[in-house]
Amino acid sequence: MAQAINLADKLARITEHWSPRVIAEMNDYQLKLVKFAGEFVWHRHDDTDEVFIVLHGAMEIVFRDQIVTVGAGEMFVVPKGSEHVTRAASECHALLVEPRGVVNTGDTGGPMTAPGDVWV
Amino acid sequence: MAQAINLADKLARITEHWSPRVIAEMNDYQLKLVKFAGEFVWHRHDDTDEVFIVLHGAMEIVFRDQIVTVGAGEMFVVPKGSEHVTRAASECHALLVEPRGVVNTGDTGGPMTAPGDVWV
Repeated sequence: MAQAINLADKLARITEHWSPRVIAEMNDYQLKLVKFAGEFVWHRHDDTDEVFIVLHGAMEIVFRDQIVTVGAGEMFVVPKGSEHVTRAASECHALLVEPRGVVNTGDTGGPMTAPGDVWV
Repeated sequence: MAQAINLADKLARITEHWSPRVIAEMNDYQLKLVKFAGEFVWHRHDDTDEVFIVLHGAMEIVFRDQIVTVGAGEMFVVPKGSEHVTRAASECHALLVEPRGVVNTGDTGGPMTAPGDVWV
């Protein structure tokens, strides 16, 4: 029988930072949980917007011309093509919504690139 | 300057039940907040899955062959084409993710059909 997906239970199983884990699919989109702290890499996604829903802690989404702070219980949509870097002073947990196949480092690549389509 | 969307602030402005309010768009999808209590109408969406993320209270998603309970901090994806009815014993608040243009009553229509694309 189908069961609801418990976000806290799924988060408890994630130990690695900056490595989104898929928890559900809707059409050709995926919902992913991610834990992170510190600063990511500047990148952009030319083909898609990207949703961040913060569940715990707070994050900053830094754009070239502004910084958006997103706390627990808040969300933000990064517009496609917008160069940005995410960062958090202490550990932050977020739910992401984005099309299947999106690479976390976008056009930048490099060592922080996480494998895609890893479920938790 | 862009600002994060605070879910509690948006919810505080919603008084009507069963009437989803758009809070953000991602590509051709919308994120909507809804408050409801009691029982909705049986319906299905033939063209899309539908995401429910429960923020407050608890809901049941009743299918012809099973009932899925979704509490606060949990989510569920209703598969496209699955006939279902949503209900809640007391007021429930949920975040929905679905393509722009989805009608809340799906193929059923009737008096519980809410106007689409109403933002809060």
